[in-house]
Amino acid sequence: MEDTAAVETSVTVSAFDVSRRPDTARLVLSSPKPPGVREEIIGVVRKAFHPTTASGAAGAAGRPPSRWGWALTALQSVFPVLQWGRSYSFKSFRSDVMAGLTLASLGIPQSIGYANLAKLDPQYGLYTSVVPPLIYAVMGTSREIAIGPVAVVSLLLSSMVSKIVDPAADPATYRALVFTVTFLAGVFQVSFGLFRLGFLVDFLSHAAIVGFMAGAAIVIGMQQLKGLLGLSHFTNNTDIVSVIKAVCSALRDPWHPGNFFIGCSFLIFILSTRFIGRRYKKLFWLSAIAPLLSVVLSTAAVYATRVDKHGVKIIQEVHAGLNPSSAKQLRLNGPYTVECAKTAIICAVIALAEAIAVGRSFSSIRGYKLDGNKEMIAMGFSNVAGSLSSCYVATGSFSRTAVNFSAGARSTVSNIVMAVTVFIALELFMKSLYYTPIAVLASIILSALPGLIDIKEALSIWKVDKMDFLTCLGAFLGVLFGSVEIGLAVALAISFAKIIIQSIRPQVEVLGRLQGTSIFCSIRQYPVACRMPSVLTIRIDTSFLCFINSTFIKERIVEWVREEVETSEEKARERVQSVVLDMSNVVNIDTSGISALGEIHKELASLDIQMAIASPGWQAIQKMKMAGVVDRIGGDWIFLTVGEAVEACVTLHKGTVLEC
Amino acid sequence: MEDTAAVETSVTVSAFDVSRRPDTARLVLSSPKPPGVREEIIGVVRKAFHPTTASGAAGAAGRPPSRWGWALTALQSVFPVLQWGRSYSFKSFRSDVMAGLTLASLGIPQSIGYANLAKLDPQYGLYTSVVPPLIYAVMGTSREIAIGPVAVVSLLLSSMVSKIVDPAADPATYRALVFTVTFLAGVFQVSFGLFRLGFLVDFLSHAAIVGFMAGAAIVIGMQQLKGLLGLSHFTNNTDIVSVIKAVCSALRDPWHPGNFFIGCSFLIFILSTRFIGRRYKKLFWLSAIAPLLSVVLSTAAVYATRVDKHGVKIIQEVHAGLNPSSAKQLRLNGPYTVECAKTAIICAVIALAEAIAVGRSFSSIRGYKLDGNKEMIAMGFSNVAGSLSSCYVATGSFSRTAVNFSAGARSTVSNIVMAVTVFIALELFMKSLYYTPIAVLASIILSALPGLIDIKEALSIWKVDKMDFLTCLGAFLGVLFGSVEIGLAVALAISFAKIIIQSIRPQVEVLGRLQGTSIFCSIRQYPVACRMPSVLTIRIDTSFLCFINSTFIKERIVEWVREEVETSEEKARERVQSVVLDMSNVVNIDTSGISALGEIHKELASLDIQMAIASPGWQAIQKMKMAGVVDRIGGDWIFLTVGEAVEACVTLHKGTVLEC
Repeated sequence: MEDTAAVETSVTVSAFDVSRRPDTARLVLSSPKPPGVREEIIGVVRKAFHPTTASGAAGAAGRPPSRWGWALTALQSVFPVLQWGRSYSFKSFRSDVMAGLTLASLGIPQSIGYANLAKLDPQYGLYTSVVPPLIYAVMGTSREIAIGPVAVVSLLLSSMVSKIVDPAADPATYRALVFTVTFLAGVFQVSFGLFRLGFLVDFLSHAAIVGFMAGAAIVIGMQQLKGLLGLSHFTNNTDIVSVIKAVCSALRDPWHPGNFFIGCSFLIFILSTRFIGRRYKKLFWLSAIAPLLSVVLSTAAVYATRVDKHGVKIIQEVHAGLNPSSAKQLRLNGPYTVECAKTAIICAVIALAEAIAVGRSFSSIRGYKLDGNKEMIAMGFSNVAGSLSSCYVATGSFSRTAVNFSAGARSTVSNIVMAVTVFIALELFMKSLYYTPIAVLASIILSALPGLIDIKEALSIWKVDKMDFLTCLGAFLGVLFGSVEIGLAVALAISFAKIIIQSIRPQVEVLGRLQGTSIFCSIRQYPVACRMPSVLTIRIDTSFLCFINSTFIKERIVEWVREEVETSEEKARERVQSVVLDMSNVVNIDTSGISALGEIHKELASLDIQMAIASPGWQAIQKMKMAGVVDRIGGDWIFLTVGEAVEACVTLHKGTVLEC
Repeated sequence: MEDTAAVETSVTVSAFDVSRRPDTARLVLSSPKPPGVREEIIGVVRKAFHPTTASGAAGAAGRPPSRWGWALTALQSVFPVLQWGRSYSFKSFRSDVMAGLTLASLGIPQSIGYANLAKLDPQYGLYTSVVPPLIYAVMGTSREIAIGPVAVVSLLLSSMVSKIVDPAADPATYRALVFTVTFLAGVFQVSFGLFRLGFLVDFLSHAAIVGFMAGAAIVIGMQQLKGLLGLSHFTNNTDIVSVIKAVCSALRDPWHPGNFFIGCSFLIFILSTRFIGRRYKKLFWLSAIAPLLSVVLSTAAVYATRVDKHGVKIIQEVHAGLNPSSAKQLRLNGPYTVECAKTAIICAVIALAEAIAVGRSFSSIRGYKLDGNKEMIAMGFSNVAGSLSSCYVATGSFSRTAVNFSAGARSTVSNIVMAVTVFIALELFMKSLYYTPIAVLASIILSALPGLIDIKEALSIWKVDKMDFLTCLGAFLGVLFGSVEIGLAVALAISFAKIIIQSIRPQVEVLGRLQGTSIFCSIRQYPVACRMPSVLTIRIDTSFLCFINSTFIKERIVEWVREEVETSEEKARERVQSVVLDMSNVVNIDTSGISALGEIHKELASLDIQMAIASPGWQAIQKMKMAGVVDRIGGDWIFLTVGEAVEACVTLHKGTVLEC
């Protein structure tokens, strides 16, 4: 009985009137060949090295280049200052000078504090606020970003380089390694830009950065306990457990509450000026100069009272004068080079991630486009130049960029103004930093940390996407209880696992028709959609049908069809007679996916069920044709739309039913 | 001028007649909530531990279970023999006995050879052909598979365990570690099955297995040079460079061409019987018994001529009798346990991959379904039991399964018959193996290798998918020039990189309408499709719009729109006035994807362009709603189909044009 039915069906299949196929269905098999691997690679390379497409990004498109035109265009592309400099007005300059001075008043105390965090003498922080901003000013494309030392990179550097050489035991080697890391980080950044590897920065997702920054902020805050409590011995580890242990054991020895008092009072002062600045927008400059004011006031107070003799720690000697050359200190072939390169690549990525995040958020406010690759090259050259002139890794700072923006900066000239101001300070006022208490530096760093912890954003990530929150939490806890590198590794691992998991277990949806239309959609997503009794329509919801999911998809489909067939055994008329696979989501396929399709077809054929395929992706249909799976399924059973495929299946069944 | 236009457009936007939206569009926003992470995990766990869904896999579905019914069902599920055993006929038994005897005649010489490859005494190979097949026979679901030692796993074991302990220097410890690895591999396999981790086997794609097997075959072949040339000293490394060096240095010493002569002549004999067996299907048994015949003939020849005194290497003493217990030899807590566990997990996966590949290909010929998880449990228990009775890792063999199938096996009873035959041989004929030349074992292994090298398949992979071929080539070269583990690692790395690359750079396609229809499709894939002048329709071809690709997609879309706007600046009527994003492929989205959508909307708004979204996936629209991006875009601009979205945009423009 069953055998006869099978024969009849197969007869009907061959007798199915092919001329009734819609014209559109033919298009699927006659589409042109998609670009191959070779063409795609060539395309990517060409795009990478000729970035000026039709949009004429260089600004000179349209008119034919004159004799020196191309040279100017090339120069403008490397130094954007040549482009915007020509239309730079005095009004803009006035704004930039004001912004630059405000920036310097915030930047000087922050730079000293961050140098302390990086376990370097104060002047190195100031050096880093001179050379990199000057280089960036002529090469960068962002108009608001403020370049200089930042908290997270300072922490990263000190925690990683401390593991190679103890800064307390051998400060000269430590410094040399920091410059080497800075040099290598700059080289990495330039190569990322040149080889268009900007997407590497995207590997750190927004969620990961939120968690990472919050963890780093807490770790940095914990590190400030050393300065705030005036401790002499402290741990080199950054994880919270080691720090708490170190603080507990240090507090058993006598300590000097004077440090704590100075630190706390100035912290409260700075935070309250910030509160006022937020409340009354016009007073924002108050919060910008509060740190400098704190330094001046506390230094004056210590000098007047000489409490440094009673245990209040002070900075003491600071070298005055311009950045000395550090080219000879670079250790590019030594026992530590591999370690330095590892540290450098992490610093390079974190610095770029911070700079690009900052740059993008402000460029989108002002409504212009930031060229990620150019930014990387500019940042890289800033660091290479910095490493030769006693600077450590510089990048765009969140807090100072916001101040720069609020102060009305129009171009990178504000960075130049800041650099010149810092340079003057280096020449003239270094002696007066002798009595500056270290606790006030701790309070300046602490006051910058709340901006790094974005609880609101973390909550909204939790609300929208649990997996993203897991990434965020992993980065946070990794930094807090492990180290900065562990936090990064955890975040990357979770992020990539997310993509792989998404590929391993794709959804496979049963489709139904919306009554009165030819629209087919998932019956789970749209419960009003109706399934057809004899045609099972299934959509494969993955863009890459590959080794990792093809077995799952095959088994899921076959299982469904078997269930359908078994439950409808009695009602012969409602038995599933054909299966339409909607492959519109399947952009690409690999050999495992192709053989899974072949096996589905075989299984369905053994159950006497006709299989049809609707709207496969370009690469997918091409590979299916080449692998011969189209011939096995039958070219007549491949359609452009689900509607046409279902139509054809229904027509076929009518024929069968009539013949029975 | 431009400002006025902007105001007018925005007026029109708010004046756009919402009541004209198609009813279907409302469905998108009113779809029920998709299952959350918690529900999905619960679903996966429930499915894992209650695998008998509506399909009634246990065979007892439908009628209510009697008092002992559930116990029987549970027993049947663990021991499938109880299910098929009841309908087992004498006719099947007769076929199985014939198949089992044929299998034994091939299995005995192969087992001795593979034991030699695993650097164990010959009897251990035979032991492995007794216990594991018996256990598998009562627990396995495949009817054709032949269980026992196989070439690749033997190589893997010897190459990895040799690195821990030198088998020549300390054979007892080496053996103990091999049993430990076998035990742990069995435990891993059972846990894979119990925790439904069968998909782990899919991580080794078909392409990777093709390359891996071919590489392993060549490496195994090279290892046979030791036996074929009668060398005493040989390298423990498996890579081709070390082996060639070892052979070259060995050939400088005097060697005995007798071994080479015996090996080559029997290799030619076995290969020619196989050729005859392929030519005349009825003579296939000739190729099945040829190895045994070779052993008998060569042993008799050596015994008669006593050429072993002239340098022909012979097996010498072989222990007779049944498998001794090896339970006390397991080293589960010692210095080598971690190394053993590493080796065990690799062996477990490779053994399962081979067994499941073999099982699936034959079950699909016979048309029944193999339960991957049950197979793993059966295979795992076989190995655990084997490790307690002096066996090493057993799995399903390609060559012997094919012989079993050709010999007409109907059930796992043929495995029992084979095991009993091998057992009898162990009891009675071991003494007679004394004079068997080692070269003939080498020729038996060599004769099995061509089946592992599938050049045709490799070529077809090259033709269909270049990335898959790269995986295949990576595995091949990794095994050949590195080691088995390196080959596996390379294959896995390339396979996962493939998925990540696919996610990093998804296609973004411009859609056009097929004239006379409401079908929208990619204008690259279907060049007949026509773009509408004022509406740019873009499809995002990734199923997961996430951190890794959202920046790329955003920049690509904004770039296209800018280009369109710039090139059509003159012809105001043809200027792009709206962009429809077809998100039908986007099944899921993360927070980075959501913010990219928000930024696209902002960019388009700044260019005075209306954005509409068509048919977003279930998870995607849910997350977009929660993140508030739907409110920003406007719920009225989200549609069920591209056609409706385009329609709405065109209606909007007509309004604008008229008002102008």
